[in-house]
Amino acid sequence: MKQPTQEFRVPVDDLEHFIKKALIRSATDEASAEAVTRALVTASRMGTDSHGLRLLPHYLKALQGGRISGHPEMRFSRRLPATGFLDADNGFGHLAAYTAMSHAGDMAEEVGLGAVAVGHSSHFGAAGCYAMAAAERGLIGMAFCNSDPFVLLHEGKAPFHGTNPIAFAAPVAGDSPYLLDMATSSVPWNRVQQYGAIGRELPDQVAADARGEVTRQPDEVAALLPLGGSDFGFKGAGLGGMVEVLSSTLAGMLNGFRLLPMGGPDMSTPRGIGHFVLAMNPAAFTEASTFQACLSDYLADLRSRPAMADSEVMAPGDREWRCRAQRDAEGIPLDSANQAAYAAMASELGLEPLKPMA
Amino acid sequence: MKQPTQEFRVPVDDLEHFIKKALIRSATDEASAEAVTRALVTASRMGTDSHGLRLLPHYLKALQGGRISGHPEMRFSRRLPATGFLDADNGFGHLAAYTAMSHAGDMAEEVGLGAVAVGHSSHFGAAGCYAMAAAERGLIGMAFCNSDPFVLLHEGKAPFHGTNPIAFAAPVAGDSPYLLDMATSSVPWNRVQQYGAIGRELPDQVAADARGEVTRQPDEVAALLPLGGSDFGFKGAGLGGMVEVLSSTLAGMLNGFRLLPMGGPDMSTPRGIGHFVLAMNPAAFTEASTFQACLSDYLADLRSRPAMADSEVMAPGDREWRCRAQRDAEGIPLDSANQAAYAAMASELGLEPLKPMA
Repeated sequence: MKQPTQEFRVPVDDLEHFIKKALIRSATDEASAEAVTRALVTASRMGTDSHGLRLLPHYLKALQGGRISGHPEMRFSRRLPATGFLDADNGFGHLAAYTAMSHAGDMAEEVGLGAVAVGHSSHFGAAGCYAMAAAERGLIGMAFCNSDPFVLLHEGKAPFHGTNPIAFAAPVAGDSPYLLDMATSSVPWNRVQQYGAIGRELPDQVAADARGEVTRQPDEVAALLPLGGSDFGFKGAGLGGMVEVLSSTLAGMLNGFRLLPMGGPDMSTPRGIGHFVLAMNPAAFTEASTFQACLSDYLADLRSRPAMADSEVMAPGDREWRCRAQRDAEGIPLDSANQAAYAAMASELGLEPLKPMA
Repeated sequence: MKQPTQEFRVPVDDLEHFIKKALIRSATDEASAEAVTRALVTASRMGTDSHGLRLLPHYLKALQGGRISGHPEMRFSRRLPATGFLDADNGFGHLAAYTAMSHAGDMAEEVGLGAVAVGHSSHFGAAGCYAMAAAERGLIGMAFCNSDPFVLLHEGKAPFHGTNPIAFAAPVAGDSPYLLDMATSSVPWNRVQQYGAIGRELPDQVAADARGEVTRQPDEVAALLPLGGSDFGFKGAGLGGMVEVLSSTLAGMLNGFRLLPMGGPDMSTPRGIGHFVLAMNPAAFTEASTFQACLSDYLADLRSRPAMADSEVMAPGDREWRCRAQRDAEGIPLDSANQAAYAAMASELGLEPLKPMA
């Protein structure tokens, strides 16, 4: 699914420059442009294409419509030594979440833990980016976000939760972190569209029609099933609910069911998305060296377990680090839709178009 | 599955007295007996029969063998204002986890968050008990625990993680909490045994044979599949791994793959189980009244969503509160195996046998 229909790969640096310039030309401040660029390029390098470069045109539309402010005055209040609230002033969720995790990390270094509820925010891309930001400074990080309704409740026949992601990253000495970044549905919404575009049946137990019945036909899909499908979807729905409680209620925001849809048509009213980030300092529980030794032993045990034929056992994140190394060397692929979208942005904003690597 | 084969129900108080006396007669101290009783009776009242009264004979065996100490000297060190480590001295996991959550709650009231890593512990029953203990004092609680290998990795063909549970509870004003308590496999191990005993096929995508291939025949089962099954088990396995990292590495314990099996035969060597508990003070993020209003709105939205025919949409915990009300009124059922086990304990320990309600 992730192969471009035509080979068109661009160097990471070129993509980075293009995204940042496009945002600056669309009247965002330096900090916002920097944060959005960092998150989109991180996702694209790791192969999380649903949350990478393809989101830029959407964000420019949201800026233009006024839904997202390119010059937010975000305000952080540290309410207690380990906690705080960040009012994101309807700016980019990426800037809000990086800022929140930066405060959470500072608190975790000082008192062992730090958590920040973020309100009045917007779509933040891939949750894993913010958990990784904690791991990059030696902390365990978690990030959560709510979103508008796509996913059924268990036994429900109409959507309620968003795909409400859970991200968890733990720092590994001398290596990339342990990184779990997952939606609480089995598949993301755009997977349905991708399958529809190529006329392929969906896997079983991932989506339902307008009556709430499981369907494998992309054109019949009205909702996603929570992780666990018809039989065990109470687990996925419960996890989605946990994400909702952390993201919206602690920030005093509307729950996902009441959010304006990401896709519009209203692109001028701020959506009031909530995030929640948590940082934990391993050395606040045991010696840092003990933690690192235990984590390394665990990962060595995991990676040496026998795999099914023609397959391999990986830790969460392993596939992504491999993709990142490959894309850093060979460039980041743009499929034909993204090639067209990036060409159109270049022409509208007067930027030099992206060129494929030789 | 949960119906007793013969109607034998006992009043909650009688069960409570029996369990506590059985533990005291088996040389446990008051605090340990109190904690184990509280956890087992809580689980049995709520209908979590896999983690309720049926575990008592196992615990007595572990006490007798010396694996679990009935007189532990648990030591808590608060390493930073929001964090600490509890050395459980190979005592009961129930006492360790209630003690850890009590410290975590104190820290959360003081600095906003509190987390405790627990080492040198043992099986703690249902994770939900400890998350609930936080919710009972107005805090959000989470509890995690590792266990010995039963569950495949994604693409793996041999067990690696335990059923590593995630519990999350949020306090609801004037009502029972929002309570999610889930294994990161689709089903618990004893579900396979229950299906086997009545000659029933398992649901699809929950268990595998010795080659790692999905099977629905209980007698072929060698491992459980992670939540998400063959296609999306990387999510369940990733969550199980998150639980493992929190439970064992932060406590400096062996990861679950290296733990001695719960079932023996070695009942004398302490297992070195790890737990992790986290408490969060909602008022440390927003006004307590705002949090409560948002959470109530969310639950009202959730419970009013349309359900499939002959079904209803519930919040996590709703089924359990209903069962608890019923069992508090009508007694807690013992199936024939538990009737026999409880009669045997009564006779061995010189206790008055449990009598069914009239």
